[in-house]
Order: sequence, then structure tokens, then C-alpha cells
Amino acid sequence: MRIEIICTGDEVLTGKIVNTNFGYISQKLEDVGLSVRWGTTVGDDRETLLAAFVQAGERADAVIVNGGLGPTIDDLSQEIAARAAGVELMLNEEWLATMEEFFRRRSRVMSPNNRKQAMLPQGSEILDNPIGTACGFAMDIGQARFFFTPGVPRELHPMLEEQIIPRLIARGGAPAAIRLKRFHSYGLGESHVDALLEGVEALVADGSAKLGFRAHYPQIETKVTVRGADDADIMAKLAPVVAEIRKRLGNFILAEDDDTLEGVILQKLRTENGSLAVVEMFTGGGIAERIAPLPGAEYIFRRGIVARDIAELWDALQVMAPREISPAGAEAVAEAARRQADASHGLAVLIDLDDGPDRIDFGGTICLAIAGADGIVDSRRSRILGGREWVRLGAVELGLDCLRRRLYGLPVTERIDFERT
Amino acid sequence: MRIEIICTGDEVLTGKIVNTNFGYISQKLEDVGLSVRWGTTVGDDRETLLAAFVQAGERADAVIVNGGLGPTIDDLSQEIAARAAGVELMLNEEWLATMEEFFRRRSRVMSPNNRKQAMLPQGSEILDNPIGTACGFAMDIGQARFFFTPGVPRELHPMLEEQIIPRLIARGGAPAAIRLKRFHSYGLGESHVDALLEGVEALVADGSAKLGFRAHYPQIETKVTVRGADDADIMAKLAPVVAEIRKRLGNFILAEDDDTLEGVILQKLRTENGSLAVVEMFTGGGIAERIAPLPGAEYIFRRGIVARDIAELWDALQVMAPREISPAGAEAVAEAARRQADASHGLAVLIDLDDGPDRIDFGGTICLAIAGADGIVDSRRSRILGGREWVRLGAVELGLDCLRRRLYGLPVTERIDFERT
Repeated sequence: MRIEIICTGDEVLTGKIVNTNFGYISQKLEDVGLSVRWGTTVGDDRETLLAAFVQAGERADAVIVNGGLGPTIDDLSQEIAARAAGVELMLNEEWLATMEEFFRRRSRVMSPNNRKQAMLPQGSEILDNPIGTACGFAMDIGQARFFFTPGVPRELHPMLEEQIIPRLIARGGAPAAIRLKRFHSYGLGESHVDALLEGVEALVADGSAKLGFRAHYPQIETKVTVRGADDADIMAKLAPVVAEIRKRLGNFILAEDDDTLEGVILQKLRTENGSLAVVEMFTGGGIAERIAPLPGAEYIFRRGIVARDIAELWDALQVMAPREISPAGAEAVAEAARRQADASHGLAVLIDLDDGPDRIDFGGTICLAIAGADGIVDSRRSRILGGREWVRLGAVELGLDCLRRRLYGLPVTERIDFERT
Repeated sequence: MRIEIICTGDEVLTGKIVNTNFGYISQKLEDVGLSVRWGTTVGDDRETLLAAFVQAGERADAVIVNGGLGPTIDDLSQEIAARAAGVELMLNEEWLATMEEFFRRRSRVMSPNNRKQAMLPQGSEILDNPIGTACGFAMDIGQARFFFTPGVPRELHPMLEEQIIPRLIARGGAPAAIRLKRFHSYGLGESHVDALLEGVEALVADGSAKLGFRAHYPQIETKVTVRGADDADIMAKLAPVVAEIRKRLGNFILAEDDDTLEGVILQKLRTENGSLAVVEMFTGGGIAERIAPLPGAEYIFRRGIVARDIAELWDALQVMAPREISPAGAEAVAEAARRQADASHGLAVLIDLDDGPDRIDFGGTICLAIAGADGIVDSRRSRILGGREWVRLGAVELGLDCLRRRLYGLPVTERIDFERT
């Protein structure tokens, strides 16, 4: 199936807002095995919108149009869709009633120009929007099925996932049952993950399992999609694949699906009545910021200390050990912070940065330690290159990941691909 | 002039990477008074690339193509450009020599497939790339002038700004001399800034001054472009506009052009031999993280303390005042942190969050204080609504902006648009 995405709106066309909807739609389609062939961006302009709709109706089988469903005069999608299909705009009584109910429940009066949002091209199929007043709809233009969606991401997301993707899968003849499973890892590069997982797709003999990767430095997301006749079929196919991925990526998997590294750490501390103190230098508060603001972290995240200067850090914590950025120094600081905050765990991430201006081979030597109330202190030394911000982000992730490993009884010093030794 | 941007590459089309180049190019063109009419995204596929080039050559006057200039087999831009124009690919000896020099200076051997990067359509004009091996070039396809650019942002940026934009301005008949001036503000909403600046464009009688806004919550960027015959003409036109904007936005302007709020704070502390201690709760380290990692902050950012629980915070700082999130509580904490770190300034941002799950009217009451070595302590109470993350980001910015105001002798308690009282 040839699919086109048309993003509309002056703010997107002029770059005033970054268009995250395009990538979102494209990724969600990829996740179910559908590929986008063209992306088109046009402004709130009748002539170019009409040309874009007509062209997409000629070259694509399915078109997702994003934006232009609002109540203001520069929202043109319904009007131009009707013109492109050669049909009239008609008041849709069903959507008008939905909108009136929407405003009534919020004790607000519906403005007259909201009525425009219920004017749909004749013969349209409504795509429900439980969150806002923009009415999604589907219709034919030329030889393609068009799906019109709101520009507001939290309205777009459920409409795409719950209403449009099932229709696309049905039209494309693919099995409607598909499942996406995700693994988040840290410490292995994308090509390394790819190599480690070689042959995993073949565990499903009929070729209905597909692997994909997405790198958000410093994490890599591994995605598996499996299609099947029904849920039972999918689960049967997915189980050996999931087991094999867990086995091959092992300790490097930090979370699955919607879980996050910081969420997994917080959850583990909570179930063990644990608590945390964090000491940072160049990461500058970036480690604390990942955990401290989370709901439920109020009593678990006890204390964070940030200092750029080592003498200042030692003074702040009144540590007696030698003032040095070394594993031993990190151990002393982690234990001092843990004890002062009366926490079950103390994490210290010390960094000795290279001198000079930022550059691609600018690096930092990271000495980190995790102290526990059990008296055990783990530490490691690591060197990361790649520029100031790269080193900083890498150190935040390394610190958090080593804490996860400690909490789950995994080796804290396992070598990662990003370090030089 | 009708301008089209064509973004190429499977990673962009599938949403595997977010396409920030499109918005970047579009904004840079807007900044000099040029508008983009179409955006097209296609993958690394010969047939769709050719169709996209041919179509753009028919409907646009100028086309910027991004990506596809690399050495690998899926980099197709030169090949398809030559086909679209009906010319041959020829080895460009000048670029080959440039590449050989590039590798020689880095003591690396040029791989044979880099030679492909010097194969350009006959009659192309080279657009220099001082940073990488991808050769930018310009040529005619159909009735449009095409500009081919690399996908790597740090290679694209100088090529666009230094080589392509001047050529577009020259072709468009607009005056080649144009200047962009930017103001960053915090505390006024976009529509408020817009209203405050009404009539400012008219200060330049010939209509060559243009205002624009870009909101990156919580900051607003105000942009002014002025065109003129030459630099002297532009400076003469710009001066009264800049003076008027500074007067009208007043204390709310936190930085201009490439300066940042955190950079301005660090700079001021540095020139006054000052130093800083920061105390945070729900912001979780986010205030420290804006300043501590900056080059030059090593000795100025003395210490940051983060705790979510108020009792923990008071214990950490050994404060004797009542344990409460109030202006008086913030004052006591700010002064204690300042004194313990022996800093010239102490900033404390305490937040009393609403209960319950995240929602659009979830809010927080912020009590912040700034203590100085001069014995003066400023404080303010502020309430921000809009959901957990909105409150957190707003509190980070409010804290930093009040610190800026204190350092520059401006009123710390001036009301902002984002607060409810």
C-alpha cells in the first residue's frame, strides 16, 4: 500500500513549531508493518492545499492529512477536501451534538465558529475524537482513502492508533492482529545490538516477526513486531522471540515497553523500602533531575548534592578521604552522602573533564560508586569521548544504569561499547 | 519567489530520526524574508526521488534538497539530479582534491567510495563544505535553481547561511543586506509581547522592518529583521526599533541574540567575582543543570542541594527556621546554603505541589528567595498551573530569571503572565 502523509499549517511550514507529528505517524505505521512513501508539508493556503490533495489522490492508496480541523478561518481541511472530491460540505448533526455535549460537560458555551468543525464533506465517515472538538473523518479523493486528523498531538495519537491504523491494516490485507514489543538497552551500540540479534526474526518460521531499532543516545530501543491470526497466535509466536532477545541482550536491557530506566530504579527502591542520595559534578544535577521530580519520589529521593569543584564537594560532604577523582574517592563520597541522608543507597558520579575547548574528541574520565546500607560499595572507572554534552549525557546514563544493576544484583562493572580504556 | 524544501532519506521518512533540518531551513529563510511554499519528504528510492525533483523543477523557483550526498550506495542525490536535468555525472577534480586534503590533514586514508562524493552533475556550481566530505552544489532542473545540501546539521548550517541564502536573496531581487536581531524574554505571553510591540514595525517608514515571534515555553523569542541598501542603512533603521523594543519589554528581556539566561547569569557572576549556591525541591536539579555544566562554571557554581521532602531539606542545611514552604522558609534556606558554600549568592526555589494525578489544571505554589553576601534577601511567592512538567519548567525559569533580576538590580517581584494569584 502506497501511503502519503500531508502535514498542513503555516506554523509547521515556516518551522515556527517543529513537526513531531510526521515522525510520530510514520513510526506508528512502521510498527505495524506499513511504510510511508511521501511526506508533504503545505501551509494554510487554498491553492497549494488543493494541489496537494489532488496529487496525493492520484499517486497514493491511503493519505493521512494532519491539521487544519480547527474552528478558525485558517483551518481549511474540510473545505479543500470537499473541493478536491467534488462534493458539498454538509452539517454533521451527530458531531454537532457531540460538540455541544463537550461544552456542556465543561460548563462552557460553544462559540458559533465551532459549528464550522461539524461541516464535513458529504459521505464522510467520522473518526471519533474523545479529547477535543476537531472531528476526524475519512473519505475518498481520487483513488485514495484520506484520513483527516487533528494537529494537537494528544488528539492525534489515539485517533491514529485506535481508528486509522486498524482501517489501514484492513485495507492493506495484512492480518489485523499485530503486536509490538519494545526493549530499552544501554551500553551496546546499534550495530552491536543488531549483530547480537542476528537470526532472531527466523525464530518465527512464517516470517511474521520483524526487528527494528531506534537510537536515542545513549539508549537504544529494540522493537519487535509480530503479526498473526489472533492474539493467541501472536503470543505463541512472540514468546520465543522475547525469551531469546532477553537472553542475548541480557543485563543490558534496562526496561521494556513503556518502562524507563529512572522508573525501574524508583520502583525497585520503593518495593525494598529503599532511598537514595546522589552526588554529582559535571552532570550538574542531571542525574537527580531524572528521578527526583517523579511522582512517588518524594521520600525515596532523599538528597542530591552538586558541585563542580572537587574541594567544594569534599567540604560539602565532610569527607576525610584524599581529594581525588578516583574510584576510591567516589566510594568515599557515595558512602558519606548515603550516611548523611540516612539513605539505603548513595550514588556518586565524579568526572575529570579534559581541558580545552569543546571538540569531537573531547572526553571525560568518570569515576562512579554506589554505596549501600549493607556495607558493600561498588565502583568503576570509565572514559567517554565525543564532546562535552555527549560526555555529560553518557555519564548521567552510566550512573543511573550502574545503580539499576546494583539494585538488581547485576554486575556494575560490565564493559559498555561507549567507553575507551 | 516560490521555494520548495525536499528532505531525503529513509531514516527521516520512517520517523527513525526527527527531521529538525526542515524547520531549521524554513526558519532561516523566514529570518531573511523568504517563504517556503512546499515541503516534500521522500526516502532513498530512485523513482520517488526523480519524481520529486522533476515536480519541484516545474512548480518552484528555488529548491533546497537536504541529504543523500554521502559515500554509500543509498546516497542518491547527485545521480538523480543528473537524471532529472538530463546531464551526465562528471568527476569534479577540484572537490576530489579537497577531499584528499581533508583526509590527509586527519592522517586518514580516503576510502574508494568517497570518490563518489566528487561525482557531480555536469555544469554544477560547488557549494563549499569546510566541515565534511559531502559536496554541496547548485544546478538548474526544469525552471528552478536547485541547491543540494548535506543531511548532517553542522555541515548544513554554514552552507545554508553563508552560501545559499545570499544566492537566494540575489535571485529574489530583495536587497542583499538584511539583519536579524533577537530578544529573549520570560514572563510575558506571546500575545502580550505582540500587543506591547504594536506599531514598532512602523518606526521604519519604508516597511523594511518585520517582527516575528517564536515561543519555546517558558521563553518567548522576538525577532526583528530589517532590510536595507547596505550595512549603514540597516543600522540606521534598526537602532530606533531596538531601542523601542528594549524600552517596551524592559526588564522582561533576559538576553539578546545568541546569549542565554544561564549564560548571562554566569557572565555577571564572573565579572563580579561572585559565586552561587542553589537549593531545589521539585525542580529536582533542573536549575543547577542549566548553570553547573557550563564552561567557566567550575568555581562559580559552588553547590547545589536537591531534596523533595522539606524535612530532609531543612536537615541537610541545618536550618533553624520553621519548616514551611513560605517566602520566609525560602529566605532561611537560601541564606543557609549561601553561607555554607561561602558563595556570594544563594538561590532557593521551594515548591508546594498540588495533590492528585497530573492534569491540565495541576499546579504548584513556588516560594523562592535570593540571599546575597550584602545581607539583602529577596523573596517572592508565585502560583503556576498547567500540569506537573509545565509547573516544573516554569519554576526553573522563574528561579533563574529572578536571580538574573537580582544580579542586575531589577525588581525580583515583578508580576509575570504565567502566575495565578
